[in-house]
Amino acid sequence: MLLARDLALELLSGRLSPIDLVARCAETIAARDPEIGAFAALDIAGAEAAAAVPGLAAAPLAGLPLAIKDVIDTRDLPTQYGSDLYAGHRPAADAAVVRQVKRAGGLVIGKSVTTEFAFMQPAGTRNPRRLTHTPGGSSSGSAAAVAAGMVPLALGTQTGGSVIRPAAFCGVTGYKPTFRTLPTVGMKTFSWHLDTLGLFGARVCDVGFAAAALTGRDLDIGDAVAQAPRIAVVRTARAHLAEPASHAALDAAIAAATRAGAVVREIALPDEIEAADAAHPVIQDFEGNLALADEFDLHRDRLSAVLAAYLTRAAAVTPDAYDEARRTAKRARQRLGDLFADYDMLLTFSAPGAAPAGFETTGSPAFNRLWTLMGTPCLNVTGCADAQGLPVGVQIVGRFGRDRAALLSAAFLERALAN
Amino acid sequence: MLLARDLALELLSGRLSPIDLVARCAETIAARDPEIGAFAALDIAGAEAAAAVPGLAAAPLAGLPLAIKDVIDTRDLPTQYGSDLYAGHRPAADAAVVRQVKRAGGLVIGKSVTTEFAFMQPAGTRNPRRLTHTPGGSSSGSAAAVAAGMVPLALGTQTGGSVIRPAAFCGVTGYKPTFRTLPTVGMKTFSWHLDTLGLFGARVCDVGFAAAALTGRDLDIGDAVAQAPRIAVVRTARAHLAEPASHAALDAAIAAATRAGAVVREIALPDEIEAADAAHPVIQDFEGNLALADEFDLHRDRLSAVLAAYLTRAAAVTPDAYDEARRTAKRARQRLGDLFADYDMLLTFSAPGAAPAGFETTGSPAFNRLWTLMGTPCLNVTGCADAQGLPVGVQIVGRFGRDRAALLSAAFLERALAN
Repeated sequence: MLLARDLALELLSGRLSPIDLVARCAETIAARDPEIGAFAALDIAGAEAAAAVPGLAAAPLAGLPLAIKDVIDTRDLPTQYGSDLYAGHRPAADAAVVRQVKRAGGLVIGKSVTTEFAFMQPAGTRNPRRLTHTPGGSSSGSAAAVAAGMVPLALGTQTGGSVIRPAAFCGVTGYKPTFRTLPTVGMKTFSWHLDTLGLFGARVCDVGFAAAALTGRDLDIGDAVAQAPRIAVVRTARAHLAEPASHAALDAAIAAATRAGAVVREIALPDEIEAADAAHPVIQDFEGNLALADEFDLHRDRLSAVLAAYLTRAAAVTPDAYDEARRTAKRARQRLGDLFADYDMLLTFSAPGAAPAGFETTGSPAFNRLWTLMGTPCLNVTGCADAQGLPVGVQIVGRFGRDRAALLSAAFLERALAN
Repeated sequence: MLLARDLALELLSGRLSPIDLVARCAETIAARDPEIGAFAALDIAGAEAAAAVPGLAAAPLAGLPLAIKDVIDTRDLPTQYGSDLYAGHRPAADAAVVRQVKRAGGLVIGKSVTTEFAFMQPAGTRNPRRLTHTPGGSSSGSAAAVAAGMVPLALGTQTGGSVIRPAAFCGVTGYKPTFRTLPTVGMKTFSWHLDTLGLFGARVCDVGFAAAALTGRDLDIGDAVAQAPRIAVVRTARAHLAEPASHAALDAAIAAATRAGAVVREIALPDEIEAADAAHPVIQDFEGNLALADEFDLHRDRLSAVLAAYLTRAAAVTPDAYDEARRTAKRARQRLGDLFADYDMLLTFSAPGAAPAGFETTGSPAFNRLWTLMGTPCLNVTGCADAQGLPVGVQIVGRFGRDRAALLSAAFLERALAN
């Protein structure tokens, strides 16, 4: 994989030029993407032209190429949201986060494959770790592009589990920052209280570096890690959905963290927090019914069967049920804040197991939805694998708004698992 | 003015047909809009065609024609956001709220004039109450179209004071519902924590009826009004910005409410709430810089001078200042919630005075920004005028999420002022 932070330092020092890095990415894409299918659109020439701008290496992203999930508007590249309905669509303006990328000196090298409107219909991308397996979704292409070394960084989005799950399946670091840390303006909305932009990179320090460069926030942790963090392990009420490989990965993470000096304790999540897991689909359904109303009302026949059926069901959620779900979520957020008085981080599953074989499903967001609704920073940490050698991730959940601490916690665990 | 709720009952009963109502609106538009300039685009033929659909009168909006502020995407009508940059722009999809209008049996008869990206540059619309005066902004066309009897209902948006202020200047009811009651998906974003969709109609019961029809919520108050509400009058720390006409209107409202049985008390807003007024521009600046990044980065020369200068300043707001402003807002919201234990509604100014003469400014949002940031339901209540006969509004502020109670409070005051 390409190491974003190290490459940025090489670019800044002049030992590497943005043009050469684009060429390296383009070569890897040419070699590997025909079998992986991570890209919905490419703009190598555009990235080359942008790479030639003098002084680029002094910018925060230093000329690093990025893949942008194709639910995010780009004025220079087609934006199809994973749907034939938008074949050839060219938005009038870049999404806010795309402007952040360009303002920071990042190069948009292509649009990465998304499932249809970031929902559940698989989109054909293959997992670079095993081509017979799904890369997960809905940020399928973003995770796969980083895993295959085609780009050092990629932008994705998570409404259920669409950053952490594909990161886990592809063996890359996925980072879902605190809700609204990255602006969603110009992203195709599915659920405005859930849609969260996130980042994919090789290591924890790479996604932290990228988030710092995009937002100007103090998130570039470099070599630092958390010191002796207090870790609460939460297998959650859905622990039975986790396969042995995921339990084994969590056990390995616990052992590694303990060896590295962490104070680790297994706890049951308070009922008020667990209750919010069931509130997530209510909120997503109610808002999805409105956010995709145009497509559903006017072009139902051109939606996938799974999405059309979902939106049909979603229309039945009442305002009262929605309001109650929002209240449940609010109570859970407050209770979760209390929990962080005693713990620096939560440690849980990233996904039920390793990437499922085949392409019938992109996997389950069962271990992600609650944290999306909580708005907390989450990271998939790499370093574990199942008996077949497929990556299995573990997930760090940090405190709302404390993203630097979450990154440092994740870096602690990443290092512990590597030792 | 056209009375939306009464017309809907006439349509439902069959005494009036949707086609005849469209024709009536079209006649008024033809007669009055050349001098008022409320519409950026019209689709009389489209409204006529939609009006002919059998069974329409049984739908919640019963075939009522609406004007849609031109910062809201419509697939069948040009959407220019008040900017030459988007001349002829046709969005790929209807905004969510436009689908709500159509699902509810409303007819989109045209796009109402907005100031450029809903900011401060006046857009040329004249005030139907006095053609030499501004109608206010940024929902200039929506307020003017209702005031002139061209449509019974119009959709607008408020980020600072863009619903309540033009409603006050034009002598119509403006209703800013609780934040996110109406979905902003497909609205041109200025500030995602502030942008709020709202409604214009003749009376309080008309906007309540429309909100109920659009959302399925229990907001159709009919003839009901609040019983003996406990009213806190808040002139705020900005009382010196209110002209004698606005103080006189507030005094008249206090007297009328007292006569009608309300318990009225003048109070000073707690400091924690007042502090949030200064947080509003910090949040708007920080988010505006990102939301309009494409237009600012790539087409600065085609923005108005006032917007270009604003966005230049806005870029200087730091993430730390933004985070602090958000915390200030959160504390204020909690404190404001406490206040509603003792009062049913707040009563304050809608604007510093009546509509200013001329078209150099759309007026000041000084009495609106705080409540936009608080996310509370607000209504401009009509019934007062200055010495020259220009309308002067007073504003009702209700409790977050308690929109029915806010509507009933506003209806109480509306009736008290009419008696």
